[in-house]
Amino acid sequence: MKRLPFPILFTIILTARVIPQTEHTLMPVPEKFFFGTGVLLVDSAFSVSLSGYIEPRLERAATRTLARLSLQTGIPLSGTPVRSGGRLEIHCDGPAEGVQSAIEDESYTLMISAAGARLSAARPYGILRGLETFLQLVESGREGFHVREVQIEDKPRFPWRGVLIDVCRHWIPMDVLKRNIDAMAAVKMNVLHWHLTEDQGFRIESKRFPRLHQMGSDGKYFTQDQVREIIAYARDRGIRVVPEFDMPGHTTSWFVGHPELASAPGPYAIERGWGIFDPTIDPTREDVYNFLFAFIGEMAVLFPDPYFHIGGDEVSGKHWDANPAITEFKRKHAMLDNHDLQAYFNKRVSAILQRHGKRMVGWDEIMYPDLPKDIVVQSWRGQKSLAAGARDGYTGILSYGYYLDHIRPASFHYQIDPLGAEAADLNGDGKRRILGGEACMWAEFVTAENIDSRIWPRTAAIAERLWSPESVRDTNDMYRRLEVTSGWLEWLGVTHRSSYPLMLQRLTNHKPIEALQTLSDVLEPVKFYERPRARRYTSFTPLNRLVDATRPESDRARVFATRVDEFLADPERKKNADLLHRWLSVWEANHAKLEPLLSSSGILRETVPLSQNLSHLAAVGLKALESLQSGKEIVWDKDTGAMLDDASKPHAELLIMVAPAIRKLVEGAGALR
Amino acid sequence: MKRLPFPILFTIILTARVIPQTEHTLMPVPEKFFFGTGVLLVDSAFSVSLSGYIEPRLERAATRTLARLSLQTGIPLSGTPVRSGGRLEIHCDGPAEGVQSAIEDESYTLMISAAGARLSAARPYGILRGLETFLQLVESGREGFHVREVQIEDKPRFPWRGVLIDVCRHWIPMDVLKRNIDAMAAVKMNVLHWHLTEDQGFRIESKRFPRLHQMGSDGKYFTQDQVREIIAYARDRGIRVVPEFDMPGHTTSWFVGHPELASAPGPYAIERGWGIFDPTIDPTREDVYNFLFAFIGEMAVLFPDPYFHIGGDEVSGKHWDANPAITEFKRKHAMLDNHDLQAYFNKRVSAILQRHGKRMVGWDEIMYPDLPKDIVVQSWRGQKSLAAGARDGYTGILSYGYYLDHIRPASFHYQIDPLGAEAADLNGDGKRRILGGEACMWAEFVTAENIDSRIWPRTAAIAERLWSPESVRDTNDMYRRLEVTSGWLEWLGVTHRSSYPLMLQRLTNHKPIEALQTLSDVLEPVKFYERPRARRYTSFTPLNRLVDATRPESDRARVFATRVDEFLADPERKKNADLLHRWLSVWEANHAKLEPLLSSSGILRETVPLSQNLSHLAAVGLKALESLQSGKEIVWDKDTGAMLDDASKPHAELLIMVAPAIRKLVEGAGALR
Repeated sequence: MKRLPFPILFTIILTARVIPQTEHTLMPVPEKFFFGTGVLLVDSAFSVSLSGYIEPRLERAATRTLARLSLQTGIPLSGTPVRSGGRLEIHCDGPAEGVQSAIEDESYTLMISAAGARLSAARPYGILRGLETFLQLVESGREGFHVREVQIEDKPRFPWRGVLIDVCRHWIPMDVLKRNIDAMAAVKMNVLHWHLTEDQGFRIESKRFPRLHQMGSDGKYFTQDQVREIIAYARDRGIRVVPEFDMPGHTTSWFVGHPELASAPGPYAIERGWGIFDPTIDPTREDVYNFLFAFIGEMAVLFPDPYFHIGGDEVSGKHWDANPAITEFKRKHAMLDNHDLQAYFNKRVSAILQRHGKRMVGWDEIMYPDLPKDIVVQSWRGQKSLAAGARDGYTGILSYGYYLDHIRPASFHYQIDPLGAEAADLNGDGKRRILGGEACMWAEFVTAENIDSRIWPRTAAIAERLWSPESVRDTNDMYRRLEVTSGWLEWLGVTHRSSYPLMLQRLTNHKPIEALQTLSDVLEPVKFYERPRARRYTSFTPLNRLVDATRPESDRARVFATRVDEFLADPERKKNADLLHRWLSVWEANHAKLEPLLSSSGILRETVPLSQNLSHLAAVGLKALESLQSGKEIVWDKDTGAMLDDASKPHAELLIMVAPAIRKLVEGAGALR
Repeated sequence: MKRLPFPILFTIILTARVIPQTEHTLMPVPEKFFFGTGVLLVDSAFSVSLSGYIEPRLERAATRTLARLSLQTGIPLSGTPVRSGGRLEIHCDGPAEGVQSAIEDESYTLMISAAGARLSAARPYGILRGLETFLQLVESGREGFHVREVQIEDKPRFPWRGVLIDVCRHWIPMDVLKRNIDAMAAVKMNVLHWHLTEDQGFRIESKRFPRLHQMGSDGKYFTQDQVREIIAYARDRGIRVVPEFDMPGHTTSWFVGHPELASAPGPYAIERGWGIFDPTIDPTREDVYNFLFAFIGEMAVLFPDPYFHIGGDEVSGKHWDANPAITEFKRKHAMLDNHDLQAYFNKRVSAILQRHGKRMVGWDEIMYPDLPKDIVVQSWRGQKSLAAGARDGYTGILSYGYYLDHIRPASFHYQIDPLGAEAADLNGDGKRRILGGEACMWAEFVTAENIDSRIWPRTAAIAERLWSPESVRDTNDMYRRLEVTSGWLEWLGVTHRSSYPLMLQRLTNHKPIEALQTLSDVLEPVKFYERPRARRYTSFTPLNRLVDATRPESDRARVFATRVDEFLADPERKKNADLLHRWLSVWEANHAKLEPLLSSSGILRETVPLSQNLSHLAAVGLKALESLQSGKEIVWDKDTGAMLDDASKPHAELLIMVAPAIRKLVEGAGALR
């Protein structure tokens, strides 16, 4: 984050008092900004005008901005932009290319004074980004609603800032996609990576090969009209749509209607489990490439984006090994292993894509010496893999560290940098080949009901990493702004907050949820791939348990841990003592309130140990707190140690996130046996 | 509420233990029901079958039921009904008429045992009602989700159970209407009274006279396609759509494009204020009736319902009196007053409606001796007016006592009975002419954002009054079930609960809302027509203040008052003492927390006196509580009396609803000077 060199643009700033420049709630943080002291009112007379280059997309964006201002403030506003003299003047220099490329000029300048606001940009993308900044600046103050005086010059650090949404493992309908596109745009992301085919579902209509979606989707697929609708919706918001058709593995659902593409004889059924499965496209037969040529041709017309994702990950190889024709093919072509065979497949697919005017994107596994250099590698392996590719001349994007289904805190994602770790040593050319990153929302454990709560607000931290200057890395400040951003995102219809009480109400039969929420607020789902280890899941398994309702990051636990550290750091042991006492008392008393509900409910019964452990933890925490304040050391008994150990283990696929901080208190108060 | 005579249908009931028959959460309460002890599981294998008479509407209802079950339980369920052997078997005897009449057979029988459920009805309407009952029975228990064993025989007390939605004074868009139709169906209401034209807006497309909507709506109107969409949506849920075109008054918006219809020369502009306005159709000219014949003809085709509402209320008469041609017309036709002239107008319109095959509905004012007896009078005046009409042979529906914009508690609406008060003395024929009632949502003080919170959950109490047996009148039990119903309604997408924290967050700039909500939870907006007395409102006035966010009924205050009464009734003064102490302490401390926010916000500043008064009230409440427990009487000073008086007055158009109960405590503790 840099400040503008010397504030020359508004004379008011020459006389400005010192303004706390960090006390804004913008997310992502702009490259350069300087706040003034005045405000520009947002009242019933607020208006927006467009000048310079005008296109329907910009007019719609201006209209949408007025509607969103109206929603944010509750002030009725006239629904259309005017030609000149708006309180917010938008000026765009010229058009962008018809199809959004991976490297667009998204820069903008936003100047707000008490007299008016001016948003200018070379291209429409800058206007779209700047409008989101303007909307984030709206707040209420002494005179009603306003935006503060500010000068902003902003542009993204990385040009590719995406979210992958897997609509296959669980079906994610249109309205959920649209509201997530809105939220992505709000934090200046610009790629929807649409994971459309999987073992568990073929989720897009093919008019050329209708057996694909008809037999591979249980009727849950996007029609081509719907696909066009999503693309237009995203385009209006400056978001590219990159489709992924994962191949040659992850293709079971293709084979239900087209077993002739597979490496092993059928029949095939839609896969219902989670994991890596053996069904694989047969890469040795010409009719398979004829099929792919026709299918990719159909999809290449439907999706205007220059990039086309072919997946390429997690090929088990078993069906290749078991097929004599395939092993013979490998022998004949002097292929040493299945990696060679997959590289052959990729080269053939790459050629098909080139014929259809597309550049190939794939996961790490596609990297192979003689693939063309214009492909893009999406790395789940990390910056080392990405950097190696970049040195070889390959373009790459990072997804390692951005897997939302791993249920890691925002702070974890926030510190992952596409140009961090091994990529930090790249030279200028190498660095330029790292285009950005994508948050990945794999859908084994999300449904339309709770997917928003897994994407938001954590993805806003990733968006900031990809947009803002590298120097923006204050985690506390990120959390301060994330809290505001999270509330603010609700204006866009994402249900990351509102789904939580509803899912808890389901569990309590619409009885009061307070006690259950007291528990749930300090819990988090288990991490990485631990859920399928805990029990057998399929696509039929209801995701309606406490683990599905509980939010991925416990703000309460994060704040509690900070307060405990501050308390322990205070030599007088006074700081936060009352607060900690109050919270611990609530947790201690909670199990008695909650137990009747939990034990009478088949679906909640599994959480009894968590509720019990939270009470026990809080009880020893209170004891420790008193000891620390009085200075009398405690010698803890064995049971306390055993309880602390148990409380740090998952139950019902949930973890008590205040356990480590309470252990700190306990260990501070005396030795544990 | 009657129980079934002797439980002969399930042998299990012969051996049943005594079951608490009131511990259900059905709303409205069915006519007859008897719960058994077992349960029918709702799990992944749940299915629905249709037999007997089957129509697409029933198939869609069954499909929707599965989707809603899936939403309520979080269990993925197969999306389509089967032909036989479903765990829920639906059997309909035969079809209804193509167009839903005002008197349909809506009765149904629902039999649920551990082995399966059977819903049967003579007509599709009974099936639709019974499915809602089934969905309300779903709860979670020891074995996951289930419905309890029950025998229900149910039918409505009144055939006309409606909600009027005014889409004119503020614009209410399609999605808001649809979700409210869903919620209406959920509590078995069956008429959407669509108030489509007003001084402030002509909200429907007329292809015959496009200047009506083009010039009279600011572009905010329903296209005829959208109207058909709403009618079809409502029909699918067994809900009639009765359009209202208010005339000859309330017609300013008509005259913007058609000043030639008016009694005074134009030009006219859309009215922006609230109240009763003078612009009135000229009832003396034949070209006006030619216009109305053509316009009503167009609308009569668009709306299939046999009823057509012509409003007819609040004609000021000033423009009639000021027009010499009109006074001359009155003289010539020996009309004594404007009431005679309006009756003449109504007769002419009634004849037009008859020519188009419609029956006229209007407000009390249309009643006049020689109107045809097939009209329906909607009474805002009350049962006396309704009963007088019924004695004269007129059919009627009640809206007096059901005005949601009066911001009265559910208990108030609940006790209003269309056959209560003066209507109780009607004979059988007279009573049969009272068809039911309609809740009225006039839109001066609601927008799309908060209209749901004004309609729900209170309208569910009105729905119960109109459906359930007259004997169902236990207010406490109503509130117990209303609380559950309110949460449950959220599955249908109505935002009556979720809009509240969002509107509070707007006021706090997305900072924590707890302290503001502590205040807001004990407030209610002022009643009746007090808001426009407090300040000048127009359709441009933002409805974004605390009064717009605060819910119409403070549950917290209602429960507090009950707890205070119980405390005072306890000779030992122990009952609830801790609870009252806790709540009063929170309120006492709240102002100190809230004051910085309130006084720094232009939009919240007006609520400082409320916050202060709540603190003061709570402080004297605590003092009174202690005195009552210790037995030491207090002599209150003058300031206390003055504060109590001020605290019972509105500030910022809001009332502190705990003030009366705190006054009771204070007066119990000693004399007030």
